[in-house]
Amino acid sequence: MASVRGYFHPKTATGSSSLIPSPPWHYSGDLLTVEYRTDPERVRELLPEPLELADEDPGAVALIWADWQSCSASGQELLDPVLSQYKEAFAVVRCKFQGQTYSRCVYIWVDKDFAIARGLHQGYPKKLGSIHQTRPHVYGPAPRIEAGARFGATLAAADRRLAQAVVTLREPSATNGFVNGHPMAHHRWLPSIEKGRGLALDELVSSGAASFEAGPAWVGDFDLELFESPTEELARLEIREPIAAYYRQVGVVWDGGRLLASNTTASE
Amino acid sequence: MASVRGYFHPKTATGSSSLIPSPPWHYSGDLLTVEYRTDPERVRELLPEPLELADEDPGAVALIWADWQSCSASGQELLDPVLSQYKEAFAVVRCKFQGQTYSRCVYIWVDKDFAIARGLHQGYPKKLGSIHQTRPHVYGPAPRIEAGARFGATLAAADRRLAQAVVTLREPSATNGFVNGHPMAHHRWLPSIEKGRGLALDELVSSGAASFEAGPAWVGDFDLELFESPTEELARLEIREPIAAYYRQVGVVWDGGRLLASNTTASE
Amino acid sequence: MASVRGYFHPKTATGSSSLIPSPPWHYSGDLLTVEYRTDPERVRELLPEPLELADEDPGAVALIWADWQSCSASGQELLDPVLSQYKEAFAVVRCKFQGQTYSRCVYIWVDKDFAIARGLHQGYPKKLGSIHQTRPHVYGPAPRIEAGARFGATLAAADRRLAQAVVTLREPSATNGFVNGHPMAHHRWLPSIEKGRGLALDELVSSGAASFEAGPAWVGDFDLELFESPTEELARLEIREPIAAYYRQVGVVWDGGRLLASNTTASE
Amino acid sequence: MASVRGYFHPKTATGSSSLIPSPPWHYSGDLLTVEYRTDPERVRELLPEPLELADEDPGAVALIWADWQSCSASGQELLDPVLSQYKEAFAVVRCKFQGQTYSRCVYIWVDKDFAIARGLHQGYPKKLGSIHQTRPHVYGPAPRIEAGARFGATLAAADRRLAQAVVTLREPSATNGFVNGHPMAHHRWLPSIEKGRGLALDELVSSGAASFEAGPAWVGDFDLELFESPTEELARLEIREPIAAYYRQVGVVWDGGRLLASNTTASE
Repeated sequence: MASVRGYFHPKTATGSSSLIPSPPWHYSGDLLTVEYRTDPERVRELLPEPLELADEDPGAVALIWADWQSCSASGQELLDPVLSQYKEAFAVVRCKFQGQTYSRCVYIWVDKDFAIARGLHQGYPKKLGSIHQTRPHVYGPAPRIEAGARFGATLAAADRRLAQAVVTLREPSATNGFVNGHPMAHHRWLPSIEKGRGLALDELVSSGAASFEAGPAWVGDFDLELFESPTEELARLEIREPIAAYYRQVGVVWDGGRLLASNTTASE
Repeated sequence: MASVRGYFHPKTATGSSSLIPSPPWHYSGDLLTVEYRTDPERVRELLPEPLELADEDPGAVALIWADWQSCSASGQELLDPVLSQYKEAFAVVRCKFQGQTYSRCVYIWVDKDFAIARGLHQGYPKKLGSIHQTRPHVYGPAPRIEAGARFGATLAAADRRLAQAVVTLREPSATNGFVNGHPMAHHRWLPSIEKGRGLALDELVSSGAASFEAGPAWVGDFDLELFESPTEELARLEIREPIAAYYRQVGVVWDGGRLLASNTTASE
Repeated sequence: MASVRGYFHPKTATGSSSLIPSPPWHYSGDLLTVEYRTDPERVRELLPEPLELADEDPGAVALIWADWQSCSASGQELLDPVLSQYKEAFAVVRCKFQGQTYSRCVYIWVDKDFAIARGLHQGYPKKLGSIHQTRPHVYGPAPRIEAGARFGATLAAADRRLAQAVVTLREPSATNGFVNGHPMAHHRWLPSIEKGRGLALDELVSSGAASFEAGPAWVGDFDLELFESPTEELARLEIREPIAAYYRQVGVVWDGGRLLASNTTASE
Repeated sequence: MASVRGYFHPKTATGSSSLIPSPPWHYSGDLLTVEYRTDPERVRELLPEPLELADEDPGAVALIWADWQSCSASGQELLDPVLSQYKEAFAVVRCKFQGQTYSRCVYIWVDKDFAIARGLHQGYPKKLGSIHQTRPHVYGPAPRIEAGARFGATLAAADRRLAQAVVTLREPSATNGFVNGHPMAHHRWLPSIEKGRGLALDELVSSGAASFEAGPAWVGDFDLELFESPTEELARLEIREPIAAYYRQVGVVWDGGRLLASNTTASE
């Protein structure tokens, strides 16, 4: 009999086929964040009990585009960049659990399988999408990171555009927004393989960056459009009042989280 | 407080964002199967205890290409075919558990996110890949389903070709091969969110088709090449002796499986 | 000094890098055709002089989805199907030149580079797109080719959906529609490399199938939606009156065309 | 009768469907260049008469990866970045025409249709490919632009990897290499629509940057592997002797070229 190895599937004798390496996971990326207020009821309906609306500004939403290069501790994926580069767009709200405020990703689209797998581990509800955001550049027509710079950002899934934004930077900012600023409170759910038996996995987990470095944040204005789709509900988080847009370059390490609650009788 | 709905993430008030619908799942597809013998040790090393090598022909491998259209009970995904069509290539071996013979998918690549999600549920170790297989056609240069017809099949992942086959049909066959002919014995694994705590989910599950219809199977000969890749180990299942190739059109329903064993202390 | 070989670029010593082989080109495919009437002025504005509106039914439009396998005379591309399979969606109108009626493709999207290259040669104004159409199948939930069968078809480009249709078959038909039934009259245009010098290539060419075989055509009803996009004008061919929808499986050979007119002073 | 507008196909009443805008075209991008010497005969065989081998270092090859954002004079494509971002990898050699030394792109792969169309205009022999290169970043694990920084670069087409390189920066450099440093001498070829009639377009054109700005170039060492493929001949430019690798960020404007020679009897 054999022991198979690997942090994730497929597990093999060597472990080298695993779709994702064991943490820590290291990231370099550019974040384009658009914050606005929606109807708090549209946030509440996405929060499974016992999560509650955050006490302050409960309708605040952050829609975030990120352009990442990520790797394991060895960094080897960076040298075969099809294995390290990916883009994502995700919607974050806040919630309250046992008196503490958490951020929570309610929708997220990525463009690589390893990003989907990491999301399963971290409780991000990932689908595949097509994500684009303007990159700053020091030469030619692409924007510098400076006042007046304009960045576009788009999201599509299943051949339909779901969101598009244009952000215009105004000035350096003390913050990169507030909606995505708390530890994440996510669920990890998997149905029982047996019909009618509920969930085989039903965990509430929390995690955040194990370490973080960043350049100066910039704040600015934005135009944002959300589009209807038969299989997506991002547009239900309708734009009631804009807050602000942000741009920031970051380096992040993720190295595991904490189990907040588990429904251990789920599959029985 | 809210109740969120949906068979899979993301769960929402309506449930309509779920990446996959609740079973039953219905499939129409074409299967191109290549069976060969590898060193049984290469199979054994992929079988976590308590799975054992099958008693008969323990080194047999099936490499299968499938071109699918799939949908929920409503069938609505068929009318927006980006939501129903996908292709996959997968390697199947056999194993023994509690005296019974099972089939087991050890590697699989698909080209849609909903297929990845279904695989998580069913215990298929899915990654994204680029999969192609010749389709039969009644007019023009594509092959008819008849003696002498030739079908190509290829698999790539992360911008590297992993496998390519050419199958030549010889005659109708009583079977579509034997390696993928048993109920599947798969693991559903997810690491604990907390480092060093092992697995949060560690289940051995079994499932098979809830119903099945098919056209006549054809048997034939094949050429198969497997290629090395730094992140894949398909080529370790080296080709020691060809068995046969098969072609068959099928209709399948999947409607849940059975929990064979669960390591319930996994996350403690 | 060397002679380079190849029907198309890149030309090399062997010719084997050419993006497309020399004709004849062989095709097996399924055609899903939706015909409707638009404002004839919307057709006229797409016809460069000296092309005129067709005398009869000048506002007729065919929007056609095709799911192809194509190859050179050797057929070798069929065995590496990433080199033979592609999908396309295209809009066809009719026009008159020197008293004869021609069909003319005014918009077309494909999903492979070799299809783009063939289009350049044939005068099809190809862009890349994401194209899907339901495939008939003899088992499972996908439709048979029979009365009541429903097929979906979608088109997207640049992450925006441009068109979607649902076709319901009613009965066998003597025709597969009439809009795409004439020889094609296409322009082959390429700007001069020098600014302000007009066109280096300005040809009106005609071509059609060198041979053709087909299964029975089916006629039916359809729902069709066209969507606006900043970079596409398909939706300007607005749907004023539906005609009919058709489904047919075909085998086609293309083997060159005829030069109708050339503006040889183009680049001077 | 109508006049249709647009720099490229499809031409319409408004011109807004054109796959590419009229020049000037503006680019911001990162170039990763690997220079080596191959057998000069392998260069010569790619040079159609009357082009000859360059007098000095005739076997020099540059293999260049570029990560671009490009736009028209209006810059609007930058705000919908699916319309501006693309990547490419291309092989450049040098040649001599009428006593002058030119650079010449002999193979090139890009990942967007508008890039293919611009290549047709400029004489670049473009195919679609999957291209990746490590991006520098100021935070996290991705490399800074500094001594010791390592960048990976890969190219695949038709589901096969064609090239992969790892570049290690050593020090700032006075140049970004020499192979791609001359005006380009390219052919624009299109076969006659009529079989056996040769070429309808057969031009030798030259072009270069209308304006250029750049950051400091860096020089370094590299590992490069080229892989065989049935439909590509890049690997024939075998690596006989490495020269150096370079990294540079640039801004470029392209605004037309010059006709060097035209075979005006091509299609007769």
